[in-house]
Amino acid sequence: MYKLLKQSGRARRGEFDTPHGKVQTPVFMNVGTQGAIKGALSARDLREIGCQVELSNTYHLHVRPGDRLIREMGGLHRFMTWDGPILTDSGGFQIFSLASLRKIKEEGVYFNSHVDGRHIFMGPEESMRIQSNLGSDIAMAFDECVKIPSPYEYVKRSCERTTRWLQRCKAALDAYNSESDAVNPGQVLWGINQGAVFHDLRIAHMQEIAELDLPGYAIGGLAVGETHREMYDTIEAVEEYMPKDRPRYLMGVGTPSNIIESVARGVDFFDCVMPSRNGRHGHLFTWNGVININNRKYERDPEPIDPLCACPACARYSKSYIRHLLKAQEPLALRLMVLHNLFFYNELMRRIREALEQGTFAAFRAEYSGKLSERI
Amino acid sequence: MYKLLKQSGRARRGEFDTPHGKVQTPVFMNVGTQGAIKGALSARDLREIGCQVELSNTYHLHVRPGDRLIREMGGLHRFMTWDGPILTDSGGFQIFSLASLRKIKEEGVYFNSHVDGRHIFMGPEESMRIQSNLGSDIAMAFDECVKIPSPYEYVKRSCERTTRWLQRCKAALDAYNSESDAVNPGQVLWGINQGAVFHDLRIAHMQEIAELDLPGYAIGGLAVGETHREMYDTIEAVEEYMPKDRPRYLMGVGTPSNIIESVARGVDFFDCVMPSRNGRHGHLFTWNGVININNRKYERDPEPIDPLCACPACARYSKSYIRHLLKAQEPLALRLMVLHNLFFYNELMRRIREALEQGTFAAFRAEYSGKLSERI
Repeated sequence: MYKLLKQSGRARRGEFDTPHGKVQTPVFMNVGTQGAIKGALSARDLREIGCQVELSNTYHLHVRPGDRLIREMGGLHRFMTWDGPILTDSGGFQIFSLASLRKIKEEGVYFNSHVDGRHIFMGPEESMRIQSNLGSDIAMAFDECVKIPSPYEYVKRSCERTTRWLQRCKAALDAYNSESDAVNPGQVLWGINQGAVFHDLRIAHMQEIAELDLPGYAIGGLAVGETHREMYDTIEAVEEYMPKDRPRYLMGVGTPSNIIESVARGVDFFDCVMPSRNGRHGHLFTWNGVININNRKYERDPEPIDPLCACPACARYSKSYIRHLLKAQEPLALRLMVLHNLFFYNELMRRIREALEQGTFAAFRAEYSGKLSERI
Repeated sequence: MYKLLKQSGRARRGEFDTPHGKVQTPVFMNVGTQGAIKGALSARDLREIGCQVELSNTYHLHVRPGDRLIREMGGLHRFMTWDGPILTDSGGFQIFSLASLRKIKEEGVYFNSHVDGRHIFMGPEESMRIQSNLGSDIAMAFDECVKIPSPYEYVKRSCERTTRWLQRCKAALDAYNSESDAVNPGQVLWGINQGAVFHDLRIAHMQEIAELDLPGYAIGGLAVGETHREMYDTIEAVEEYMPKDRPRYLMGVGTPSNIIESVARGVDFFDCVMPSRNGRHGHLFTWNGVININNRKYERDPEPIDPLCACPACARYSKSYIRHLLKAQEPLALRLMVLHNLFFYNELMRRIREALEQGTFAAFRAEYSGKLSERI
């Protein structure tokens, strides 16, 4: 399902097949947590801004409106009218970051909903059941995302449990896919590597989960407080133990620089709420660095956010107008800023792919890796 | 500038020329208070949902971002990238409904900004200066919108002052239009009839302001608490004193039924925040009546808001999905609901015009006047 088209150092230009079409990698997945991108973007907008893969959150959709409802409505693709590939996370990350009163047991996690406090249990089988009901193209394994720092012994035992959970995820999803009324029987499971910043644990865990021969592998548990240096070192340590013929997904990362640097270290898939969240606060990416449109100097600026950008916001609107909308708390401000930032990220990936194809990735990295994340 | 194309009883099918194109009447103006429709709609969206005239609020834009800034940015058309006709109100209505500590004098009104409390003075010349800076196609006269009920004597004196203010508005706008750097030198002034629900005062005032031979006249000061019956009676009383060869604008009205009934009484222009405001709360217009999408019965409804509707929301999305977005506080819910409601209003006017052209307005009125405002 993954085809490596070209390589430049460790950086890879590839292609991944899903039941809803091919994905050109490296790729940034656009995060629509609850089945929509925050900022009033619709599935139609996602097409227009060059999104290849939409990512939704299992935990959120399970809590509201409920995965059974979405299944009845024909699955998440139909519910949100997005006919391209969808990846769903396992719910694990949100359980560990949002839910309260959680208890981790061998069977899974007991916790209270962040919306109405009701008791929920989720283990590997429940996560797979929910993701099967949603009918995403790529289901992520149910894992424990350990916080950094955590004691070595705790991380070791957690990784062992995550491996056992992964085996249960695989068995469960195989079973759900074989049901005659499966929403998306071609749905695949990707495993997640954990181990905090302990390289030996990362490697051992990666070797264990590689044995399950899954169609894709993620590096989880990074971008949770460690330094960029620690993150890059961990990727470098684990990358050579990841199957070469499977895509690699670095979960929850990151800035444009993080992405360029991680592509250089062999990563293919990315996701992050940064472009939409920062966009909503007026922090906007340009090919010269990050601007803060709240700045007084843009009050009378008739130019678009980035004169080099072809997004729907830059095609029509001035910084002066968008800044006014933001100050006046007009929802259109959020929409235009999120359209711009996500377009920027999708375009960044397109240019990374182009550079890889043309053998110019090293020059691209040298030009943009520092610049794109700098505030100007 | 106004051409009466066809008449059916008192109902009129007409056409009005502006510097930014012809307006087919009867027409509903889409309200973008601060230079954008609340609900994350852009000028591009307005085109798509059939908007003919955009309406912005002088008071709001004067307070934030300031009319001088908009003038520097090339005027409101360019600022918000809307190249169709724009009408601006005078600021009077907001001064009387939003601002605090206001004092009405012969020269104008002293009040405090609702945003930052700063002292502002606005009289006829100031209102015209601001509207000239905004460069709208139709500038509305600066008037006092008296509340209902008010004592007869107060209303009488207020109308006399409003007439004197209108004369000053006319002189001021003529002067501003003749300046070499006028933003929109073809901008015209419409007068506003006042008089609360006192028919003799309404008529006397209408006769006075008709003498100024302005290109359009509005009925102001209605839809502020009187009954629908009082409103219709007042329109009927004053209508025959309004020039036949000028468009008539009923300010701030109203429900679909109010619009159909007022068209039947000779009104050509309408505006109201109802479709966008109610839309944001999930109250959605359909050709069978008004639905509340918060209702539990829509939780698993795979149908669009109105299967008879061709709006961008109904073309793709189910009630189930939109209801989920609303419950989950996703901004996309607001956008889809406002797109739908405004499209509905614009389509309502198109069908009214069509019925007038085909001589079937009486049947249209009989079928829809009651039904469209009923909750179902």
